[in-house]
Amino acid sequence: MSAFSAVEVIATKRDGAVLSDEMITWVLDAYRRGEVADEQMSALLMAIFFNGLSAAELATWTDQMIASGERLDLTGLSRPTVDKHSTGGVGDKISLILAPLVAACGAAVPQLSGRGLGYTGGTLDKLESIPGWRANLSGDEIRQQLESVGAVICAAGAGLVPVDAKLYSLRDVTATVESIPLIASSIMSKKIAEGTGALVLDVKVGRGAFIKDVERARELARTMVGLGAAHGVATVAKLSAMDAPLGRAVGNALEVAESVEVLRGAGPSDVRALTLELATIMVELAGLGVDPAAKLDDGSAHEVYRRMIRAQGGNPDAALPLAKVSELVMAPRAGYVRDVDARAVGIAAWRLGAGRTRKEDPVSFAAGVTCLVAQGDVVEDGQPLFELHADDDSHLELGRDAIAGAVVIGDEADVEVPTDLGLIRG
Amino acid sequence: MSAFSAVEVIATKRDGAVLSDEMITWVLDAYRRGEVADEQMSALLMAIFFNGLSAAELATWTDQMIASGERLDLTGLSRPTVDKHSTGGVGDKISLILAPLVAACGAAVPQLSGRGLGYTGGTLDKLESIPGWRANLSGDEIRQQLESVGAVICAAGAGLVPVDAKLYSLRDVTATVESIPLIASSIMSKKIAEGTGALVLDVKVGRGAFIKDVERARELARTMVGLGAAHGVATVAKLSAMDAPLGRAVGNALEVAESVEVLRGAGPSDVRALTLELATIMVELAGLGVDPAAKLDDGSAHEVYRRMIRAQGGNPDAALPLAKVSELVMAPRAGYVRDVDARAVGIAAWRLGAGRTRKEDPVSFAAGVTCLVAQGDVVEDGQPLFELHADDDSHLELGRDAIAGAVVIGDEADVEVPTDLGLIRG
Repeated sequence: MSAFSAVEVIATKRDGAVLSDEMITWVLDAYRRGEVADEQMSALLMAIFFNGLSAAELATWTDQMIASGERLDLTGLSRPTVDKHSTGGVGDKISLILAPLVAACGAAVPQLSGRGLGYTGGTLDKLESIPGWRANLSGDEIRQQLESVGAVICAAGAGLVPVDAKLYSLRDVTATVESIPLIASSIMSKKIAEGTGALVLDVKVGRGAFIKDVERARELARTMVGLGAAHGVATVAKLSAMDAPLGRAVGNALEVAESVEVLRGAGPSDVRALTLELATIMVELAGLGVDPAAKLDDGSAHEVYRRMIRAQGGNPDAALPLAKVSELVMAPRAGYVRDVDARAVGIAAWRLGAGRTRKEDPVSFAAGVTCLVAQGDVVEDGQPLFELHADDDSHLELGRDAIAGAVVIGDEADVEVPTDLGLIRG
Repeated sequence: MSAFSAVEVIATKRDGAVLSDEMITWVLDAYRRGEVADEQMSALLMAIFFNGLSAAELATWTDQMIASGERLDLTGLSRPTVDKHSTGGVGDKISLILAPLVAACGAAVPQLSGRGLGYTGGTLDKLESIPGWRANLSGDEIRQQLESVGAVICAAGAGLVPVDAKLYSLRDVTATVESIPLIASSIMSKKIAEGTGALVLDVKVGRGAFIKDVERARELARTMVGLGAAHGVATVAKLSAMDAPLGRAVGNALEVAESVEVLRGAGPSDVRALTLELATIMVELAGLGVDPAAKLDDGSAHEVYRRMIRAQGGNPDAALPLAKVSELVMAPRAGYVRDVDARAVGIAAWRLGAGRTRKEDPVSFAAGVTCLVAQGDVVEDGQPLFELHADDDSHLELGRDAIAGAVVIGDEADVEVPTDLGLIRG
């Protein structure tokens, strides 16, 4: 005999009333067990899309998602733990630099990551382009590496918030992805379950992000910061513009190479600046009095990166996969680069082979786009704008079609520079 | 390659935009074929619950439901066709009297009906209490009987709007029943597919109906009248109060017996009055200049009823099933009957065995409630209020519990009489 019926729970949310803790506990557990069917959960998710979840409902929902699986126990480490999550952008390779940098500052960074889907890449896909590197670690291996190296980037095991995978697959096919409480609980349940003590969220907003609107991004950020606080995880969110690609490289091995450039003190200035900004917050949340810029410039972060790659079986000195075919995309006229469209570049990289359409698809490590110009640059007629990389000509052709129009060239020198969208603290 | 993706269609409605004709056509057909999954359709239905359907969307939605199956062809009959549908009330046996009455006035009444679920009864369940009577007729049998007798009450075949059965089962378990466009399209698709030329809708409102609120009932009525007009079916809706049971008998054979009383010129005055009111509209819609009261009083309607029952294998003179156990429920005090709660009486009849919980459950023909008093009556302490009928003591006990408190007795003689809620015409 069930405590509730699924229809009763769905109708409660549909009619704008509050789901009791008992209802939420029952419905998530019954869904995990298969007693509540997919068609009932999707109706509930759509009702949540429309009527939302109160802060108290969301806290219980998130608790019960976490309760569906195991938790990592990171207590007893000699270093304070702090992690980072990005909602996903084009060319966003920040984690690869940030995790070793913050570890070099004295923290432990337990970065449990995912793979890419659609036109935004996944951190694990990028690191897997390094020969030998493996994404799957046991809980004990994670703890050991956090103690010895200070940074881990690995796959979240299937035991961590298992109901999230089931819910996410359902949301993906039922147009219920774009719900702030559902996004927030999906992200935060995994970060809370991984056991980090503090968290920085990089909430991307703009045409290259899945949230286009600043007010919605702010609401998502506030919701996640609140959830973190309610679960004892000190959380700060930064909103960052994602209209143009971050850095110059978009694609798995290409982004690893660019990350190493930044770790060596070079690389694109926007990547370096955002990394340092996030690192500063993380170091502060970890209670450490260290300047991240110094740790980047003196090579310590790079050294931690190399140890982190080696600890997971990777060879940081091995050559990265190279594309079999490449071509340049030229400027059709002279002028000023007024715009580089992150979404078009992301889609081009995806079509070139760097991304996947279904979660079981393989990715090409070598494929992607190198951006040769950025907003504000002066270009001549026929000057290269992009270099496209792929494993074969058919992918190259798809990428060529997708990148058309990604750069806007005009006569005026002034360009709109994204404003600082600010931080949200608990 | 599909014309659309389910996610695209769901997201369109979720975001408040209009579904194109092509989208509606595709999604209903793909759902029927199993290409759109139940969890996708339930998300779409919930989005429709929140954002509704425009008149144009609803017309297309209904068209495509009809297109999912066969249509009855009633053209070429020598009589004009006119039908009636009730949204369901407690003790609502009007169809049993109305169909033969309107046939006696010269029309053909092709009443394709359903079975009961929950506490409102189904017309087919009632007629099946008559020995020998069968609900399933072929299209040819329906046409022949309409020509020879003028009235048919039978089951809507599985070939008529097959997607409605699939949608209704899904709505039932996903809390998406209570959506005006979904209710309207479910009812009207079947009435349009059955081929009637005109239609009267009896839209019940009150605590014994599934719509409690007059404004919502009016909106449903307007929506259905509009749909009828758009499909060439002249449609009039009457709103009628369903706070107290209609008539005195609630239960399958009990309601057949009461219907025959009314056909004989006796029976409860509320049943007679509502039947004549609906008959008058139907006769007008059919373009016939006949007074239904005369056809009721001169025995013609009763004669058509007997021929209709016989034409479907039933024996109108056979004894109806009798309950094995009965008991009286007494007034706890003297006073005026201020209220008889239709919902409580309906639930009691259901618990006594007259109704079903799941659509595959059997019903008891003999079980039910006889109301021995009505609103406004004077009662003495210990006077019988109800007689309960069941097939065994355990059902009797369930009914006894359910009926407690169904009658309110007070000291004041004045009672609120339901106001006439009026008609809605196209």
